[in-house]
Amino acid sequence: MHALQQARTVARSVTRGRGLATLNNAPPAGKSPTAIVMLNMGGPSTVPETHDFLKNLFMDGDLIPLPFQSLIAPWIARRRTPQIEQQYADIGGGSPILRYTRLQGDRMAALLDELHPATAPHKAYVAFRYAKPLTDETAAEMKRDGVKRAVAFTQYPQYSCSTTGSSLNELWRKGKAGGIGEGVEWSVIDRWAKFDEATRSDVVLMFSAHSLPMSVVNRGDPYILEVSASVAAVMDRLKHSNPYRLVWQSQVGPSAWMGMQTGEALKGLARLGRKKVVLVPIAFTSDHIETLYELDLEYVKEAREVRPFIVRLVWQLD
Amino acid sequence: MHALQQARTVARSVTRGRGLATLNNAPPAGKSPTAIVMLNMGGPSTVPETHDFLKNLFMDGDLIPLPFQSLIAPWIARRRTPQIEQQYADIGGGSPILRYTRLQGDRMAALLDELHPATAPHKAYVAFRYAKPLTDETAAEMKRDGVKRAVAFTQYPQYSCSTTGSSLNELWRKGKAGGIGEGVEWSVIDRWAKFDEATRSDVVLMFSAHSLPMSVVNRGDPYILEVSASVAAVMDRLKHSNPYRLVWQSQVGPSAWMGMQTGEALKGLARLGRKKVVLVPIAFTSDHIETLYELDLEYVKEAREVRPFIVRLVWQLD
Repeated sequence: MHALQQARTVARSVTRGRGLATLNNAPPAGKSPTAIVMLNMGGPSTVPETHDFLKNLFMDGDLIPLPFQSLIAPWIARRRTPQIEQQYADIGGGSPILRYTRLQGDRMAALLDELHPATAPHKAYVAFRYAKPLTDETAAEMKRDGVKRAVAFTQYPQYSCSTTGSSLNELWRKGKAGGIGEGVEWSVIDRWAKFDEATRSDVVLMFSAHSLPMSVVNRGDPYILEVSASVAAVMDRLKHSNPYRLVWQSQVGPSAWMGMQTGEALKGLARLGRKKVVLVPIAFTSDHIETLYELDLEYVKEAREVRPFIVRLVWQLD
Repeated sequence: MHALQQARTVARSVTRGRGLATLNNAPPAGKSPTAIVMLNMGGPSTVPETHDFLKNLFMDGDLIPLPFQSLIAPWIARRRTPQIEQQYADIGGGSPILRYTRLQGDRMAALLDELHPATAPHKAYVAFRYAKPLTDETAAEMKRDGVKRAVAFTQYPQYSCSTTGSSLNELWRKGKAGGIGEGVEWSVIDRWAKFDEATRSDVVLMFSAHSLPMSVVNRGDPYILEVSASVAAVMDRLKHSNPYRLVWQSQVGPSAWMGMQTGEALKGLARLGRKKVVLVPIAFTSDHIETLYELDLEYVKEAREVRPFIVRLVWQLD
């Protein structure tokens, strides 16, 4: 594979001076590598792979849920292929993402060998969701290498169920089907944000802000970003001690509003068995109808009916 | 006014021990107060004020743009009044927001007298957008007090054109109509985030992330919050040196997606005469079709047609 050769050459030149004679693409006999499985969407490395990439993409119900997906997806993929082929031709004859991912992975594995010899050798694998190498190809390679310890490492910095979630689901299906081998010990890096699962309380902090119509959001209003930044600042201050969500309240009228809605989120947590929730109004500076009536009387009442235990937290004056 | 009396009493008891004999609700003769105008939506202090509050709210095109607004707004307000009156009755016979706002304002003015004697005396005014005291009542009070220096201080921590924007527009209209008096020197606190306007570069940092369908967002996906947190972290690192926006790219299909769209945002900045933009892909870890084709070839080309100068920034490997 040309791209891999190129990645290895570059990786070697980059790691010179670190005292690493070779990269660990061939683990020493007797010790199986710690696998770092780099998960991403992927892209067609050559223009002719475009159709299969699109078909895999439109077949993924985690990314795009379609009615009659197995019938409609191939049709959409065929129809869109010529235009997307042209786009890949325009950026140089294919997607560079496999080349870059291997480069990043090989350099990371070399660094990990230095930083954490106890789990060496480390070997980077690439598992793309829609392009080659697909998860089953990667799984077979891991099986051949006798992998016993693996880290699923998303290349999407921020979590979404449609990206990292879809890749993890695919990995789980292949593992369940026996494709990866027996007795593999997994750990998962599912986003690049700071968090500390070990010390984390199981109380969910549910930040609730007044929603906005999507017509305002789509015009470029900065409120969604600024409220999110407020939540991130609070969570930084709390050293990410708790799981948290940002949800949106007080929608009115028939038009589309920013979600997830606070009431739906409370019901959802209750369905998941999360009974301890602190509801935090994040965009209000004093009590009024939307904190006192909607949060206190409506949402908490609804939530108590489905039985989570709710504590409400408000910034009071003293 | 009962609420004001109560606020003064509480504020006095709170400031005891700070060596402040009186609060500065009556500025000394000869020196006009520095006005801190607390802007908020407001709420009906008593249940019978509910109808006027709702009517003012539905009349506000900055908050809810309606077709034939001046005809439809009164009708919606009348129809919703009974239900909302009941809600205010349920939380104790009216909105507490005026009481809390005066309390916060009076304590802040007392603190400012201590912290910044050069601009003392400070006096807090309340200008609600939909409930009493409305902006024109407040403006008349400021005029009577002979205010020459004023700070418009939003009580919405995060900026939205539908909240702080609407209040500032109202203030501007009353000022233009002469309601506040001549020669008032204004400054504006339009959000509570950190920023440093004096040293700020005029290059706009436009962070672009792959969008998500609203069906996924509304199901509670954390991606929007996590991408926003990434942007906030970058801006913190840059000490908020530039104006910035978070926009969303690569929408496909007819359903609703998270916005504002990257392409629309570039055109919008060009219309505003903002010619210097750095486009920053914030949710991608390597180049691929959406950075190379959409950002490089499509958006930058479109933007150059409307003539802003664009520099693209990508995280490369070395």
